[in-house]
Amino acid sequence: MIYGRVALIGLGLIASSMFWAIKRGGLAGEVTGYARSAETRAIAREIGLCDRVCDSAEEACEEADLVVLCVPVGVMGAVAAQIAPVLKPGATVSDVGSVKREVIRAVAPHLPPNVHFVPAHPLAGTEHSGPRSGFAELFDNRFCLIVPQEGTDRAAVEQLAAFWQGMGAQTEEMDADHHDLVLAVTSHARHLIAYTMVGVADDLRRVTDSEVIKFSAAGFRDFTRIAASDPTMWRDVFLNNKDATLEILGRFTEELFALQRAIRTGDGQHLHDYFTRTRAIRRGIIEAGQDTDAPDFGRVKKG
Amino acid sequence: MIYGRVALIGLGLIASSMFWAIKRGGLAGEVTGYARSAETRAIAREIGLCDRVCDSAEEACEEADLVVLCVPVGVMGAVAAQIAPVLKPGATVSDVGSVKREVIRAVAPHLPPNVHFVPAHPLAGTEHSGPRSGFAELFDNRFCLIVPQEGTDRAAVEQLAAFWQGMGAQTEEMDADHHDLVLAVTSHARHLIAYTMVGVADDLRRVTDSEVIKFSAAGFRDFTRIAASDPTMWRDVFLNNKDATLEILGRFTEELFALQRAIRTGDGQHLHDYFTRTRAIRRGIIEAGQDTDAPDFGRVKKG
Repeated sequence: MIYGRVALIGLGLIASSMFWAIKRGGLAGEVTGYARSAETRAIAREIGLCDRVCDSAEEACEEADLVVLCVPVGVMGAVAAQIAPVLKPGATVSDVGSVKREVIRAVAPHLPPNVHFVPAHPLAGTEHSGPRSGFAELFDNRFCLIVPQEGTDRAAVEQLAAFWQGMGAQTEEMDADHHDLVLAVTSHARHLIAYTMVGVADDLRRVTDSEVIKFSAAGFRDFTRIAASDPTMWRDVFLNNKDATLEILGRFTEELFALQRAIRTGDGQHLHDYFTRTRAIRRGIIEAGQDTDAPDFGRVKKG
Repeated sequence: MIYGRVALIGLGLIASSMFWAIKRGGLAGEVTGYARSAETRAIAREIGLCDRVCDSAEEACEEADLVVLCVPVGVMGAVAAQIAPVLKPGATVSDVGSVKREVIRAVAPHLPPNVHFVPAHPLAGTEHSGPRSGFAELFDNRFCLIVPQEGTDRAAVEQLAAFWQGMGAQTEEMDADHHDLVLAVTSHARHLIAYTMVGVADDLRRVTDSEVIKFSAAGFRDFTRIAASDPTMWRDVFLNNKDATLEILGRFTEELFALQRAIRTGDGQHLHDYFTRTRAIRRGIIEAGQDTDAPDFGRVKKG
């Protein structure tokens, strides 16, 4: 047991997976949960998600040794303001947001000085959302990035790291700005591109939706899976990681234009060289043990 | 048995998967094979790929009832010219190219009038290539698009369709230009985008390759898998489906710019609406039975 009581605020894919992983690992004495929607709370009670589902965020946070904000990035600040008065002295407050600088800016000012704020971000997800979508294995062998603030109590940071390791994740510390840039490259820009491509396919009236669907084969469906991710979560990610995302998208369109030009001018050497280089990058990923032939983005739900 | 003798010209992922699928289904009396590279022919002999591996394309095609060109799109014409003199009267010539209009333009003029030319394109693949990468299940429940020419013998078309169905595929007929547009949307543009995104990540020196690799999590790796596809095959696809690919990429950058602008101006409603629409498209794909939660782009090799 790493924490006596853990409060999960927001009960979507990440929080529900955390609950099952906490139970699997025996990491907490009691897990309380709260979701803004009465329907979500009812589902949580029905499926046994959380030891106790509370009707207010404040009630869920009372006496909690760890409070994890699992709400969209855009409402983290408001939720922090709401729970601040009831936080137990010495408690740790963390979050699971995909963006760190803006979350810290929004949350930190509301927290009393006698709690430890240790932002974090587990790099795991599926295209499903809501309280029924979680499973205990979601974080297994995935990274959880921990973003300690200057002056944060080291014991609190290490306790949170141990907690994520208990849920199956590898942990690593990173500063907020670097986190936001790394994620813009590896995740945020990619999601926007997938959304765009699926939108384009749908707009193109000469190719019907049913053709896109039927003939999307082993290819286009990867994009549609990404583009099915939670709209509110992703809207908030882009609005709150604006600078890094726009920088990456700027570079992306620049390179895409160079490849389009090579296609237009028939420059096969340019294309072949580029594709050979990207293939080598993939090989590096396989060799680094970060992937296998069995993709696990849509990992089979077991929990 | 659907054909007495089948010749596979080129022994990469598609041809090797065809061979195992032909054997599984008992679809041919004998399968001959040829690859330009002596190393590939040696591997084929070592692993029992093809009943008989020949040292020339002409030898492989002699007495064949069906010849399938499984070479990159850019060399289809040259291979057709080479084998044309030895084709058996009444034989069917087909291909598996990802582009149809340019393949037809390159191949058709070389073929004698007494053979049936029935272009085809199985919508299946993985990021692996070469003679060892094939497996019998590759085409199971995938579409194979058949692109008959005006005046093609119907019996020849239907025999080829039955052959692909025997390998596990569903078949559908389509005209060449429409095929090329549908594929530009569902496959070609998507591949170029994945290549670009992986290239951008690699270029960005402030985020190291090892960080991209380590933290690519459930997300970026889908792109790297796509971007690892065979460089020669894809160079030829883009050079030979130039018009449709450039049209789709033009629309794509237009929409991407609109989303970038929404991020820059903080227009959350635009983003949320767009993401909600793309999520609905994904749901349509699931309901149409064209995907499950278990992605099979990197389907486990069984053959």
